[in-house]
This record gives sequence, C-alpha cells and structure tokens, in this order.
Amino acid sequence: MLNFQLYNPTNYLFGKGQIAKLPELIPANTKVLLTYGGGSIKKNGIYDQVMTALKGYEIVEFSGIEPNPKYETLMKAVEIIREQKIGFVLAVGGGSVIDGTKFISAAVNCETEPSDILHRTAEVGKNTIPFGTVLTLPATGSEMNSGGVVTILATQEKLSFGSPELFPQFSICDPEVIISLPRRQLENGVVDAYMHVLEQYMTTKHDALLQDRIAEGVLQTLIEIGPSVVENPSDYTLASNFMWSCTMALNGLLNKGVPVDWSTHMIGHELTALYNIDHARTLAIVAPSLYTVMFETKKDKLAQYGRRVFDLQGTDESVAREAIVKTEEFFQKMGMKTKLSENTENYDDTAKFVADRFTERGWTGLGEAKNIGVDQVKEILEMSY
Amino acid sequence: MLNFQLYNPTNYLFGKGQIAKLPELIPANTKVLLTYGGGSIKKNGIYDQVMTALKGYEIVEFSGIEPNPKYETLMKAVEIIREQKIGFVLAVGGGSVIDGTKFISAAVNCETEPSDILHRTAEVGKNTIPFGTVLTLPATGSEMNSGGVVTILATQEKLSFGSPELFPQFSICDPEVIISLPRRQLENGVVDAYMHVLEQYMTTKHDALLQDRIAEGVLQTLIEIGPSVVENPSDYTLASNFMWSCTMALNGLLNKGVPVDWSTHMIGHELTALYNIDHARTLAIVAPSLYTVMFETKKDKLAQYGRRVFDLQGTDESVAREAIVKTEEFFQKMGMKTKLSENTENYDDTAKFVADRFTERGWTGLGEAKNIGVDQVKEILEMSY
Repeated sequence: MLNFQLYNPTNYLFGKGQIAKLPELIPANTKVLLTYGGGSIKKNGIYDQVMTALKGYEIVEFSGIEPNPKYETLMKAVEIIREQKIGFVLAVGGGSVIDGTKFISAAVNCETEPSDILHRTAEVGKNTIPFGTVLTLPATGSEMNSGGVVTILATQEKLSFGSPELFPQFSICDPEVIISLPRRQLENGVVDAYMHVLEQYMTTKHDALLQDRIAEGVLQTLIEIGPSVVENPSDYTLASNFMWSCTMALNGLLNKGVPVDWSTHMIGHELTALYNIDHARTLAIVAPSLYTVMFETKKDKLAQYGRRVFDLQGTDESVAREAIVKTEEFFQKMGMKTKLSENTENYDDTAKFVADRFTERGWTGLGEAKNIGVDQVKEILEMSY
Repeated sequence: MLNFQLYNPTNYLFGKGQIAKLPELIPANTKVLLTYGGGSIKKNGIYDQVMTALKGYEIVEFSGIEPNPKYETLMKAVEIIREQKIGFVLAVGGGSVIDGTKFISAAVNCETEPSDILHRTAEVGKNTIPFGTVLTLPATGSEMNSGGVVTILATQEKLSFGSPELFPQFSICDPEVIISLPRRQLENGVVDAYMHVLEQYMTTKHDALLQDRIAEGVLQTLIEIGPSVVENPSDYTLASNFMWSCTMALNGLLNKGVPVDWSTHMIGHELTALYNIDHARTLAIVAPSLYTVMFETKKDKLAQYGRRVFDLQGTDESVAREAIVKTEEFFQKMGMKTKLSENTENYDDTAKFVADRFTERGWTGLGEAKNIGVDQVKEILEMSY
C-alpha cells in the first residue's frame, strides 16, 4: 500500500430537510454571495428553501455559472466579492457551480492573475473566501473534495486545480433535490460517478485490498440503482444511494494508498472542449477503448473487476475482455452513446487534434503506469470513432 | 437511508516513516505531554523515533496508562497539564492510551468533576486540550474518531464518552509498528475491528445499500488478512491492510445512514469489568449467542452477510444460521476462545449479575430494534457459558 494522507474537514450533512440548517452553518451577520447556474433552482423550489433558511442574512446573488464553468464568468463574481465585502459564498448547484465557486474562493485574494492558479504557476494561498454548498445535482463529488475544473474560453483550455484550502466548509446533500432533474443529467451523474471510481481502481494490480473492496462496493451500488434511479428519481432509496455513491466516488477516500489513472478524464476533457459533449458522455466514449488499448497493463485488474462486480467466470484473459464489454453495456443502459460518431459530426481529425494538444503540453506518459503516450491517445480515440 | 452528518477533521497520515513528520504537525514552542502505556514503546523503538522527531520541543512524559484506562490514572495526567501549562498532548499507543488521552483532553478544563463527563451529566466543552496520536496497536479506530471508553476503578464502571471536540488533530499510522506486537494483541485487534463492523452492520435490514457494501468489504479484508497477519506481522501488505481496516471499521463512516446495534459491546464491557477478559475476547464470547438469541430480528441481514461475505448458498434461514457458525469459526481461527467457561472460572452467576447491572442502570431495550431486554441479556450470557 502506498503512503497516504487522508484529510477532509468538510462537514457533510445528508438527508431530508437539511437545508433548514443553513443558519447553524453560516456565521450570523455575514454578507453572503449566493452562486448558482441557469436558474433551475428557482423552478424546483430549492432557491425558495435556501432563501427561507437564510432570512436575516444580507445576500447578493450571482447566477449564470454555466456547465463547464468559464473563467471569464467566474471572474465577474470575483469582482463582486472584492467590491462588496462578501464574507461567505454559498454555492447552490451541481459540480459546475461548486467547482466554479471553489475557483472564485481561491481567486479573490490571488496576488497574480487568477488564471495562474489554473496554469499551476500560482499556488492557492491560505486566504481563500470561505464557502459552503447545497448540492442540487449528484455527479462530481465536488461537494466533498478540494478540486475543480474550469474552462478558459479565450484559449479553449479545460484545466483542473485543487488545494487543501478548497474543501467546502459544509455541504448539504438532500437526495430529494433530484426529483426535478432532467433524465439526461441523472444518466450523466451515474456514469460520471462510475468513471470516477474506475479512474482510481482500473489500474495495475496492487496490494491495497480494502480500497479495492470499497471501490467495488460503489460500482456495485451504482449498477444496482443506476438504471432505476433515472426512471424513478422520486424513490428515496434510489435517490439517497445515488447521491451518497456520487460523493463517495470522489471525496478523496478511494485514491488512498493506490495508484490512480485519470487518463480517460484527460482525454475526455478534450472532447468536451472540442465538441461540447457532456462530460460523462465523453468518459463513456473513451473508457472502453482506453481499457482495450491498455489491456496488458490493466488485465489483472479487469479480471478482478469482472469476477467481483459482474460475477463473470473464465480465464483472466476472457473475463477481462468481457468486463470491458459489460462496462460499455452498462453505459449504454444508462443512456450513453459510446461512440464519438454518435455524439458529433466531423470527428475525423479528433485523434490527430487531441494528440497534437497533448504533444504541445508535453503530456506524454499518462495513466498509472505512465505508459499512455501520444500514440496510445491517438489509437484510443480512433477506436472510439 | 437515515439522515446523517459526516464530519471528521482528523489529519490521518498513513505509511512508512510518517513519525518524522511530527514537527510539521505540532506547533513549535509548544510544551508537549507525551502519554503512553506500560513502556513497550521503549523496547520497540517507537519512543526513540518520536523523541528524535520532537527534538527541540519541551516534553513532559506521562506513562502508565493501562489497558482499559482508569479514571484515577488519567486524573493524574490532568493535574500535570493544569500545573505545568502543557499546550499539546501526544498519545503514543493503542486504543487505551488514545481513549485515555481523549478523556484527559476533555477533563482539563471541565468545570465540574470530570467523572461527570463519563456519567453524561457534563458536556465536553470547546476548550479541550489539542492532541494528536502515534498509533502503535491497530484495533479500536480511536485514532480517527471522537469517542473513548474509560473505567472508574472505584465503582467498577466501564463507561463510554464522546464529543465532536475530541477528534485527534492528527494521527500517524505506520503499519511497521505491528512487527513487535505480541500475537495475542494482533488477534485481539483483528477481532475487535471485525466486531466494530458487525455492530454497525448486523442489524435489521435497511436500504443504505452502499454502506452495507463498504462494511462487507472491511469484513472480507479482515477475513483475508487476519489469520496471516498474526503469523507474519512483518509482511507490509498484511500489516498495512490490517491497520487501515481497523481505522475504517470505526472512524465514523460505516454508521452513516444506518441503524446500529452495539449491544455486544455493552454486554462485553461487563465481562471485562467482572473478569478482566480482553475486550476483543468478550466480543467473541457474546456475539454468536447474541445473534442466535436475536435471530428473528437479524435473520435477513445474517443471510445477506452469509451469501456476500462467506459465499454461502441455501435458504435465508439456513444461510443465516450457518453465517453465525462461520463467524464463530473465524473468531476461533483468530485465537479466540468463544465460551465464557474457557476464559474464566466461577462464571455461574454472570448472567444474573450482568442482568442486575443492566436493570440498575435502566438499560432495557438495547440493540438497533430496542428489543434486547434484561431477559435477552440473561439468555445470551447463559448461552455463552
């Protein structure tokens, strides 16, 4: 098992009616910036619940944080905080709003251009603006981790950032919020969480036995509830297991003591940047090909996964191959179209284009074994057409 | 799934060589009280590692915290802290030393008699003394939770306490420390952790699907590595999975959203108080009888456990019965003697004596379904003779 540090101070409140606890969580007499997205929270009643709970607080609203949040948008919120002496930011939304709010929190007191945080030329300092979240869309785990992804429109770059200073102070997760979500977002949430687990699990084999068991438990739960929760989001058993699985998939527990991959995400991000394909859908496109191209590296783990998660039997080789098929079938069952050609037109140059981007950035040697080079990226993407 | 709050700010550092990080974790110029037990840390080299790391700190030592730590002993440390302006307590030991240190931390600024904390007539205030831990004996999970158990010698009471103020600021967990542990302590550690999981799992059936999967993963890991780790504690794969499983068994994750039992512990504590039987061994004595007596309540979950953890097949009834047998066999494989008569003489009046104690305290209705009364406690203990 690899050495690790587990530190996660987020106060995570899960269940029905938890939004009413907001006044216990945000200091009184604090001026609050309420960040949210396109306004769906006004239709589904969550905005009203939050405003009722926050009665007595001075609140400034900042709406319009878009999916794949944009640097240019977020910097407007940064200006508001600087000008209006905001003391606390409350993100009400899904992964994009929460990721965006993390960046806002980090950027306000950044001594250089805040885009430096994304380019990793500036560190996130200790003087971030405190923030909490009310989760409205389970998927990314951002409500209980300290990282995020932001897109710079000007340069079409989708870049990740993170810091131990960027854990939400609290996150309120009420599974009932999923009732009003569009089916497509629920499908995306299940697949996003599933792939978060696989990125931390489908690696070279290692000896962190418990971590594998926990990862398999999240995968099994998502397989068990995923297809049903998109049909019946008002079923609380399904909704609660879905929401909690999404958090556990990426709250910093599964990667402890193990090697991690994340190359599916890195390639997938490029497809979102190029074609604006939903994040989860890019992962469903890339992963089956990636596991096929990197088969020799991942074969042992694919076989373990096939046996434990899908109850497959046979040789390591055959179970590992079948496990990839089963994974793609699960994605399809979750409404994903797993080929690039089913998601966009004019995809012919994708492999070359993405490979060139990776070359520009010097990204050779991706994946847990650092053996996914530009040639492999091309091969993976061509197989995904 | 039940509503829950997950909050655990302990900074958990796991792996080889982590003790050297102590100076990054304890503020400079702080006077440190070093708490430990009977002095085994001086034989196995851990004391030297700690003292080397803490070079430059002013250190006061407090040794002699015994297994099942005694209130009377701990109050001596409380006096030292009050008199010598100690700013930080570093517990170097197993569950007893860490539990004792938590109580010390809570007692120093307690405004009434600190035993009130144990009798739950005083709350733990915010002005606790900060403390961290270096774990030397995996078992109790105390290194990453906020509770403990202390025995009052004068009244022969073994009482639990806890507070969100009593999380260790950090815990250093280096699996290599187990190399020098006596076999009996390793056996106890595995069974203790296993029973911690079962207390939070072997309940009435519920719909927190992921929590069950995680619990089963810890059980499977302990079954996989338990018998070997007592034979080969210098095997790092075994040691690291053992230590991490012990923490995960009781760091406040498994009980989220689920009903919990804990009656095996409550009955077991009485056996330790009466006969000084090792804590883990009392659990191995009580649990099989408890699951047999409470069979109807726990049958569904016993059957799930039998199928998923022991791969048993058959009807719910037969798998559930066999799962109890398999559990007792696992305890025996771990060196436990699972009958009271194998652990002490003159046990004839135990059932009546313990039942009377429970009656005195008004402890009727134990367990997740609140259906373990005094009659059941008697029946369980008589079955354990």
